[in-house]
Amino acid sequence: MNTKQAQELQEALDAIRRRTINNIYFVACGGSKAIFEPVQYICDVESEKPSAVYTSNEFNYRQPKALGETSLVITCSHSGNTPETIDATKKAREAGALTICLSFKPESELWLAAEYGISYTWGPDSKPSQTNSPMLFRLVFGLLNILKPNEKYDRAMMELELLDDVVARNKAATLPAAKAYGIAYKREPLIYTMSSGECYGVAYSFAICLLMEMLWINSQSIHSGEYFHGPFEITDYDVPFIIILNSGKTRFLDERALDFARKFSDRVEVIDTASFDMHEISEDLRGYLAPLIAGVVLRQYADALAYHRGHPLSVRRYMWQMPY
Amino acid sequence: MNTKQAQELQEALDAIRRRTINNIYFVACGGSKAIFEPVQYICDVESEKPSAVYTSNEFNYRQPKALGETSLVITCSHSGNTPETIDATKKAREAGALTICLSFKPESELWLAAEYGISYTWGPDSKPSQTNSPMLFRLVFGLLNILKPNEKYDRAMMELELLDDVVARNKAATLPAAKAYGIAYKREPLIYTMSSGECYGVAYSFAICLLMEMLWINSQSIHSGEYFHGPFEITDYDVPFIIILNSGKTRFLDERALDFARKFSDRVEVIDTASFDMHEISEDLRGYLAPLIAGVVLRQYADALAYHRGHPLSVRRYMWQMPY
Repeated sequence: MNTKQAQELQEALDAIRRRTINNIYFVACGGSKAIFEPVQYICDVESEKPSAVYTSNEFNYRQPKALGETSLVITCSHSGNTPETIDATKKAREAGALTICLSFKPESELWLAAEYGISYTWGPDSKPSQTNSPMLFRLVFGLLNILKPNEKYDRAMMELELLDDVVARNKAATLPAAKAYGIAYKREPLIYTMSSGECYGVAYSFAICLLMEMLWINSQSIHSGEYFHGPFEITDYDVPFIIILNSGKTRFLDERALDFARKFSDRVEVIDTASFDMHEISEDLRGYLAPLIAGVVLRQYADALAYHRGHPLSVRRYMWQMPY
Repeated sequence: MNTKQAQELQEALDAIRRRTINNIYFVACGGSKAIFEPVQYICDVESEKPSAVYTSNEFNYRQPKALGETSLVITCSHSGNTPETIDATKKAREAGALTICLSFKPESELWLAAEYGISYTWGPDSKPSQTNSPMLFRLVFGLLNILKPNEKYDRAMMELELLDDVVARNKAATLPAAKAYGIAYKREPLIYTMSSGECYGVAYSFAICLLMEMLWINSQSIHSGEYFHGPFEITDYDVPFIIILNSGKTRFLDERALDFARKFSDRVEVIDTASFDMHEISEDLRGYLAPLIAGVVLRQYADALAYHRGHPLSVRRYMWQMPY
């Protein structure tokens, strides 16, 4: 992270240190909500403090009763102008919760609504280690280290600084497969994604943001544990699935879904996070950090689909075109 | 409920009364998991105790750290033979949690794994008030009444006894619309569902069980708060949506999604739970109980689709046909 980010993170963690935190809410919309799934997983596995992910307006209108002065509410909005997320941050702050936001745009309305802000960089020239998810991971490992210190969290912080090389190497290694995918799947009207555990959020984000929003391809991110309890009956020789295999505790769920899907569909693509070269990262942290690599790897698949469909990822028919 | 159910419920509630409950886990798969969503919503709104819904194997492999002797774990499996849910119940019981299961089949493996069991009836001849969701609602209102007594929960218990008439009346009132839907949408290869709040679970269940599993129609249950943050770009004049409007606190989310979808799609069907005749139910409880009506109303839509597609809801190509 850069100096500014390090300072913002330090201030946010100092604020956490001064408070009693009894529960954690992660609140955002769409792609920003999706990045919360892996850290909620990590919190759930590492800590006894309850944590939950909400889409912003569900949080705003549902008004969870446990929200209060011992709550930590982490919000995120790319441009810092998502009305629901600004509203959630204000409501949480009014309820006495500690509010920390992440945004690409400091001084945005979201930034001003939260007590603390952590900025991230974005775009083709930015360093992967300084983008939204890695900054969020640092915040969460820092939080866990305050709740119950463990050398593992310090290690995670250090290893997140090595992320740029890990990302570059794994992007390069998977580029040929992504390019081939773009050609082979360019005419598909529907592609399902599937995962669980740390990478479920990546499957969700790819389905609703990359496929549906940016490519107008129908989709659903099926939880690989739920696959056998309904969705699997849709499987047929020509139904495409992208399955992200976790390397962590829930790998069995993904492998079971993959084994079945492969038996009955000829259109199954696998992103195996265990095959990523993450040698700089300690073995016990690779499962946790895998979604950070899976996300950028999958972006290449979307780029290839966009290229071969002649439909740039920047095209929108409603967003940026009209009020809604 | 019948005498046996009343006794089972009493025993389960007595067990809760004897324990300290610090957190609540709802664990099941597919359709049985879906019925947990509305009660988790109710817990979230009514109580400060943390509660969460997990698909069984995510729970088993993730192993949430807060699971322990002050946990209440409620599981459900229709025939009581879902291996993941049996496993979850055993794991929870081993961890010292209080375990209560719901099943159509007492003496099933799930039933034997849990400390307490609540049975429900099923099939065309059973009374709606004695089926899975209403029994679960009674358990949860009973739990809330123990955690923090409120006359509202007693009222809810009494009014659940009046459910058979409410269901019959609203089924009859919506049957013509359901029949017309079956004809108009019989050739659709994909139908999206959308909702939030109490009825999100109904939208989820209809998408993965009725449409995908039983009718082999592609689907996704889009959260109406998430719709504007990705999925809405898929909207076009010929993309079908079924939108369930809540009558509770999140109605605004559903109405906003409906207003937008209607502008750009000619294929939007609305199930407005505020239009249900629920006059026996107190006004402050109608939102909570609406999913119990929405579920059976939507079943008629599935029946009509099945009839006009010549594809009975009982047809399966994988389930019951092979091990997986």
